[in-house]
Order: sequence, then C-alpha cells, then structure tokens
Amino acid sequence: MGITLEQAQAAVQAAHQKALQMGVKMNIAVVDAGANLTAFARMDDAWLGSLDISIKKAKTARFFDMPTGEIGKLSQPGGSLYHIEHSNGGLITFPGGIPITDGSGRVIGAIGVSGSTVEDDHAVAEAGVAAVQGQ
Amino acid sequence: MGITLEQAQAAVQAAHQKALQMGVKMNIAVVDAGANLTAFARMDDAWLGSLDISIKKAKTARFFDMPTGEIGKLSQPGGSLYHIEHSNGGLITFPGGIPITDGSGRVIGAIGVSGSTVEDDHAVAEAGVAAVQGQ
Amino acid sequence: MGITLEQAQAAVQAAHQKALQMGVKMNIAVVDAGANLTAFARMDDAWLGSLDISIKKAKTARFFDMPTGEIGKLSQPGGSLYHIEHSNGGLITFPGGIPITDGSGRVIGAIGVSGSTVEDDHAVAEAGVAAVQGQ
Amino acid sequence: MGITLEQAQAAVQAAHQKALQMGVKMNIAVVDAGANLTAFARMDDAWLGSLDISIKKAKTARFFDMPTGEIGKLSQPGGSLYHIEHSNGGLITFPGGIPITDGSGRVIGAIGVSGSTVEDDHAVAEAGVAAVQGQ
Repeated sequence: MGITLEQAQAAVQAAHQKALQMGVKMNIAVVDAGANLTAFARMDDAWLGSLDISIKKAKTARFFDMPTGEIGKLSQPGGSLYHIEHSNGGLITFPGGIPITDGSGRVIGAIGVSGSTVEDDHAVAEAGVAAVQGQ
Repeated sequence: MGITLEQAQAAVQAAHQKALQMGVKMNIAVVDAGANLTAFARMDDAWLGSLDISIKKAKTARFFDMPTGEIGKLSQPGGSLYHIEHSNGGLITFPGGIPITDGSGRVIGAIGVSGSTVEDDHAVAEAGVAAVQGQ
Repeated sequence: MGITLEQAQAAVQAAHQKALQMGVKMNIAVVDAGANLTAFARMDDAWLGSLDISIKKAKTARFFDMPTGEIGKLSQPGGSLYHIEHSNGGLITFPGGIPITDGSGRVIGAIGVSGSTVEDDHAVAEAGVAAVQGQ
Repeated sequence: MGITLEQAQAAVQAAHQKALQMGVKMNIAVVDAGANLTAFARMDDAWLGSLDISIKKAKTARFFDMPTGEIGKLSQPGGSLYHIEHSNGGLITFPGGIPITDGSGRVIGAIGVSGSTVEDDHAVAEAGVAAVQGQ
C-alpha cells in the first residue's frame, strides 16, 4: 500500500547517511500508507527506548498526515487535541515523524526518527523524505 | 548488543534475495542479543498479518536460543511447554525464527520470517542466517 | 500481605543455590499473598524469555493456590479450564510455580522458576518453598 | 548483559539499607543493559502501586541513559519530549531512576526506586548505584 520496499529502504538509507554525517545514533522507521512497518534500521548503540518511539512517530505522522510536531502543538493542555496520545496504542507527538508523499501530493507512507534531540530527529527524518520525493 | 546493524542488514538482504528467487513475499525481521528489533523489511504485497509474526518469531528465537519450530514441538497440547505462547507479550512457536550465532557459537541475535508456508519461512530465514555466519 | 521480604529473599536464595548445584540458569520470582512481586533474581545468561514466564508462574500459582502444573492438566483441549491462560494478562500453566504456605497451611505467596526443563524448574521452585516452610 | 546478578543484588541490598535508615518503605528494581529485570525487592507494606513504578523507572533510566528526572524536565507541557511517557509500554519520568555505569563509564544497567517522595526515591537509588560503582 503506497510506498514500495525499494522506496522505504532508500529513505532509511538516506536518513542513516544523514545521521552518520551529524554524528548521531538513530532508530529509523518507515511505514506504508496503511501505517504498517515497511523498513527499519537501528544504528549500533542507539538508545533502546527510541526504537518504539521511532515507530510510533512514523505511525502518528501517517495516522493524521502531518508532521508529528504539528500534532504536538494541538495536544498541549487546553489544546483541541489534548491527550490524543492515549489513542491507537500510544502516539508520539513531538518532532521526528513526517509523512511521505508521491509526486501528486498523495501520502504514501511516513518516516519516524528517534535517538537525539527532536531537532536532530526531524532533520534526519527530512533527509529520508527527500530521498523518496526527490526520485 | 550483539549483532551490528551492518550484519543485520546483510541478513535481511540475503533473506530478501532468497524470497525473490522462491517467488514468495515475506516480512523479514532481525533482532539483536537483547531481542530488540535491529533491521526489518516487508516485501511489497506481503501479508499484513505476517508483519507482527515475523517480529515475534525473531524475538522468540532469541528468548530461548533455539529455532521457533523446536519450541512449537514442546508447546503442543499435552507437551511440557503447552501455551508458552501466552508469555512475553505473545510468542510465535512455528518455524521461521532462527537464532544467529557468531564464530564462537555465542548467540548475537535472531531472524524471523513470515509470509508463506512455514517451510518457506524457515528456508528464507536460513538464508539470512547464512549471510551473517558465512562472513 | 502474607510473605515478608525476608522470607521471599530466603526463598530466592535457596532456589538460586539449588540452581547452581544443578548447573542450570534460572529466573526466580516470589510473589506475596496479593500476587505482587516481592523478590526476584535472574541468574547471569539465563534465557531472556524466562523472565516473564517465572513471574507469570508465581502469579498463576497464587491466583489459584495450586502448583502451575496442576492447572495445566485442567487446561488441555477438552479440559474444564481450557484456555484459562487467556485470563489475568496471561497465565503460565506448566510446572515451575508453587504456592508457599505458612505453618497453618494458609497461602502467603508463591514462587515461580523458569530457565530449564519444567522438571528442573519445578525442582528449583521446591527448594525455594522449603526454605520458607522449613523455617 | 552488562550488570551481573551479584552486582544487582548488591545494589538492591544497599538501597534497602538506605531505606531502612531513612524510615521509608520502598520497591527497588535493577535492570541490566538490555533493560531486563535482574533483581528486585519490595519492602514489607510498601505501596502496591510503586512496584510497577520502580520497574518502569529502572527501564526508563536505561532506555535513555539518564536519570529519570532529567527526562521529566523535558516532557513537561510545551517541552520537547511532551508525553514521551506513552512510549515503550509506559515510562516514568520523575526522579528515582538512575543509570549504573562501570568503571569506564559504560552503562551496564539501571536502578529504579519508588515508595516515598521523589527526593527520597532518588536518594535511595543513589545508594544503590554507589554500591556497584564502588563509591
């Protein structure tokens, strides 16, 4: 559904390369249009707790077709989506998850990255997205 | 812990190649010595339900350091490990999961494959193991 | 509730010593009369998957105040308790879990052991029970 | 993986002694480098709800290799890791969990303590860490 394994692996590889350049150790997950895990890589000595977070970020980004950080803005106390994280077996709503679209703007999957600051996580995720959308 | 990402990706790639040769569509998961997911690939149009099974097979093989099918022989009705599958958040005890050892016989991780018959799953998993142990 | 920490640690220590004598690597869990974990020890290099099983055995033995293997006889296909393992977040119904009673026969807790054959698991659990009941 | 049972039990014992000195009733959990429970003790009449919290604190400290309270600072409303607690089956991000390192600074496990104020929990956890690190 949506992204192919070939595209998903290209995204993982590009994100991996970006992480190596930045000197960070990441968990990198790509899900398809059905929010099913399609490709995954955990860099040596990356935080153990980031494995689950990377997958949840990718799923969250596809569940709502927006970057996870955007959902986080709406889920703050008093916000319209307060505590949305309790749904779907647990969401992660801080940056590091980004939808992946095809040439026509249709969402075909998403990438989730975790292992460093949320700014680093997002930057590595963007590299993964670019590898698919730039094809 | 144990298997490196490079080794895990070599196992996934070899299993993927074997599956292509056999004309089957597989989910392929590799975990490290701590039973943490390290590399994963889902072939296009592989059964959705096999995603979770492949990961559980890899974990099960590492949890008890033996091929999943061996555990399945012991967990039949009347067997000594009947219903062991209810532990650890769910085990899978039919063939398709195999421990991966280093040159000295130490278990460094495991591979789990799901998407076809259990015989096919096991054959594809073996190809993944060989790629690491043959290095 | 029921067993004290001092008694629970005595049970774990006695089971540990028995396991060392037998040359097996065990996970050893003791729960109190409320089925809450009270003391636990995992021997170096014991199977990872046996951690959860040892705790579930101890809980199962206290949930029904009988050795886990006795419940397993009743949960076979066609048996009166078929599939009872689906309750309470997962039971383990093969040998290795035994209730612990005080001098008056009242159940004050239970021990669960996992890491080898079910016969070995049960023998090590018995050593733990004896340490408390022999006091 | 990482910490030995002997070291883990030394940490639990030292934390237990500290708690007795302070007149508090604690749950004390030690996990290994794979975040697997290795040793545990619940003092008589300690809060039942603190059992799970102590284990989650130990796991959280190892998942991210930092004291749990540090993560809690980042997971407040508006913080970069807001609601990270929804990952990994539930994290605890207030004080009481501390990583344990070996002489070279490598993380070999973690301790989690729960049963009193978070300040008390942290102090008891520190006593456990010191017993292993030789301080």
